[in-house]
Amino acid sequence: MPYVNIRVTNEGVTAAQKQELIEGATDLLQRVLNKNPATTFVIIDEVETDNWGVNRQNITSVRKQERK
Amino acid sequence: MPYVNIRVTNEGVTAAQKQELIEGATDLLQRVLNKNPATTFVIIDEVETDNWGVNRQNITSVRKQERK
Amino acid sequence: MPYVNIRVTNEGVTAAQKQELIEGATDLLQRVLNKNPATTFVIIDEVETDNWGVNRQNITSVRKQERK
Amino acid sequence: MPYVNIRVTNEGVTAAQKQELIEGATDLLQRVLNKNPATTFVIIDEVETDNWGVNRQNITSVRKQERK
Amino acid sequence: MPYVNIRVTNEGVTAAQKQELIEGATDLLQRVLNKNPATTFVIIDEVETDNWGVNRQNITSVRKQERK
Amino acid sequence: MPYVNIRVTNEGVTAAQKQELIEGATDLLQRVLNKNPATTFVIIDEVETDNWGVNRQNITSVRKQERK
Repeated sequence: MPYVNIRVTNEGVTAAQKQELIEGATDLLQRVLNKNPATTFVIIDEVETDNWGVNRQNITSVRKQERK
Repeated sequence: MPYVNIRVTNEGVTAAQKQELIEGATDLLQRVLNKNPATTFVIIDEVETDNWGVNRQNITSVRKQERK
Repeated sequence: MPYVNIRVTNEGVTAAQKQELIEGATDLLQRVLNKNPATTFVIIDEVETDNWGVNRQNITSVRKQERK
Repeated sequence: MPYVNIRVTNEGVTAAQKQELIEGATDLLQRVLNKNPATTFVIIDEVETDNWGVNRQNITSVRKQERK
Repeated sequence: MPYVNIRVTNEGVTAAQKQELIEGATDLLQRVLNKNPATTFVIIDEVETDNWGVNRQNITSVRKQERK
Repeated sequence: MPYVNIRVTNEGVTAAQKQELIEGATDLLQRVLNKNPATTFVIIDEVETDNWGVNRQNITSVRKQERK
């Protein structure tokens, strides 16, 4: 009965990639802990880059610096 | 001082239904644990069906199969 | 497929009370949104009173003041 | 390696205010617990006022009453 | 900069299994979304079986029935 | 009505430090967004070092390497 919450920045994650994350996380729990996929929840939260900070910077700023 | 977080798929939950969830969760905490409604928070997260997986499938796919 | 997370202070919640919270939250989601109990998760987190603050005070201090 | 999740209602928080929250929370963890800013995450969730309840009322209703 | 939160019941997960979950979730995010492992957080929450409900039952009861 | 959740590793955080985090986070929300302290919740989760991973390593291992 695991619950997996994956939070990533909202930067163009496709439906196919989300499906890969769901399958991968479910399989991981089954492989390591023998958890039943039928009751494994995976929820993906996409967070705006203005709303995510690391090292005192929001990711919008981080991405701008990376493009320079 | 309870905090209740209800996560459901984003499939047309109305404002009236959200209000019912808020009242119902607050009343539940008051009835069972005698918690004060004035400091009971209820937060509802609506998650896109592409972003929620169960049994290795996203809910978008599950809904398509149910409609067949 | 709802996920309900109830966070309360760790102040002697009994197993019977936890079971009432689980049933009450599951029934609420079924009544309001017609959600299937078989895939409704309810998770209760019990948080130490030192670790929960409201109005700039931890709940350990709040409880001491209430007892005066 | 702290993770800080700030949830507020979605009522016009500006990018500059979000940046202030990110800096303030990161500095707080560094000052109190000597945590490294480079591995401090701050994530801000903006929640619709219909989806946040306190004292059995959603915040949309609370705001209407305040304006009266 | 992903954040992955894995919640499972507290039923004897070993340190080696936790390490496998950490590696597996980090590798999944790198493979699917090209996320940097250096800023990928994985946090595992172990929840008491009395505190986790599915299908209106706590997992303590579910386990008792399974053993019959 | 903000909700702030601070997750740190369980490595000897004192009650006084927790109180500082509660005050600091509450004041931050008041200063930046004019939020009322009376309805600001701060919850601190202390996570075992085996249960927190960054860069594919759990923090128990990271700490051992740092001591070398």
